[in-house]
Amino acid sequence: MGNAMIEAIGLDADDTLWENETFFRVTEGEFVALLGEYADGADIASRLLDVERANLARYGFGIKGFMLSMVQTAIELTDGRIDGRAIGRILELGQEMLAHPVDLLPGVPEALDALAGHRLILITKGDLIDQERKIAASGLAERFDAVEILADKSPETYSRVLFRAGVAPEDFVMVGNSVKSDVLPVVELGGHGVFIPHAMTWAVEHADAPDHPRAHRLETIAGLPALVARLEEGHA
Amino acid sequence: MGNAMIEAIGLDADDTLWENETFFRVTEGEFVALLGEYADGADIASRLLDVERANLARYGFGIKGFMLSMVQTAIELTDGRIDGRAIGRILELGQEMLAHPVDLLPGVPEALDALAGHRLILITKGDLIDQERKIAASGLAERFDAVEILADKSPETYSRVLFRAGVAPEDFVMVGNSVKSDVLPVVELGGHGVFIPHAMTWAVEHADAPDHPRAHRLETIAGLPALVARLEEGHA
Repeated sequence: MGNAMIEAIGLDADDTLWENETFFRVTEGEFVALLGEYADGADIASRLLDVERANLARYGFGIKGFMLSMVQTAIELTDGRIDGRAIGRILELGQEMLAHPVDLLPGVPEALDALAGHRLILITKGDLIDQERKIAASGLAERFDAVEILADKSPETYSRVLFRAGVAPEDFVMVGNSVKSDVLPVVELGGHGVFIPHAMTWAVEHADAPDHPRAHRLETIAGLPALVARLEEGHA
Repeated sequence: MGNAMIEAIGLDADDTLWENETFFRVTEGEFVALLGEYADGADIASRLLDVERANLARYGFGIKGFMLSMVQTAIELTDGRIDGRAIGRILELGQEMLAHPVDLLPGVPEALDALAGHRLILITKGDLIDQERKIAASGLAERFDAVEILADKSPETYSRVLFRAGVAPEDFVMVGNSVKSDVLPVVELGGHGVFIPHAMTWAVEHADAPDHPRAHRLETIAGLPALVARLEEGHA
């Protein structure tokens, strides 16, 4: 792999820097309970996931799309028998998610401190306004040289980010909890991808970890500064 | 004003390059008709606007937020009596908007052709995924040197765009149909703002046109190349 300089480090946000999926799962639980008289819990959850997948291209990632998919699932599952009040409750569940405080994952501020000599780019996808709210609420905004909120994470969108930052893919490390979104597209471009699994990751994000010299895995973000140092020494 | 070089031209998208508000008003008309048995049309429309304003900080701009505000308005206006089928129809109305083809405004391709010697930056706000869809569908993406989709248009967000582009505010012209979003914040930064009114502009965007030497007004985009030329000669 040779001796390399890591010029910039990209960090995913949801479930890499702070909790996210857990709030979706809690809300899903309340949604399932709300529809309990109409169907079995596992059926409701799997129907919701089908609707979310089908709506992904039109709604993108984020809470607003999730709210719209919950409303649609409730209507379809009940053949339109669900009443306005229950749907109002679904809207409230989503609005509570949108107002939820940001819970940083353990070790995040310390890892960012240790990496402060590098250019750090926060690279996330989803709802523009909700991601901006979370970045502001996280208290981490100042640590980043740039923030990129993408509609989707693909080789094409990463390559635009790197072009804007003036960074070559081989000098770039992307870190996140999704093999599909954070590791594979960057490795494809010639950069490094670091997978840090989170106990909860949305089914849509699942992909097998690749066996590739530029694909790495850490158990927690605490190991990131040492991994970056090893990459720069060419030992990783 | 002196002799100046206009280094970059920012163009708003919705209702500056292509139709947008008209689709919201058509959908609003169908929404009002759907609730016709519960309330008077004008009341429904004004209630919807109140809900949209109240939700703006949490949902931001765009069709998904509009859909959620329609559902909420329907529930509130009917005290929860609205049925699931009618709410399903509201979701369909929004999904039709999300799939609508892009209708360019007259003179847009010609004006962009005439401005091709300048750096052109598309600067829009709203839903990331929906704006990206429209940019792709417009056939105009290639004409722009950069695309910036912002959660909101303020002096702060414009200043970030200009920093990224390496352009000084005094060498920048922003063009759009909203005095509030496209003209005032850029004039405040020291740049030029060009207001091109559109027959339909959302109530939330209304603001008085400022009387300021760097605030300009055109009746259509066809006049833009000549205005930019005048600014560069220092006669505008």
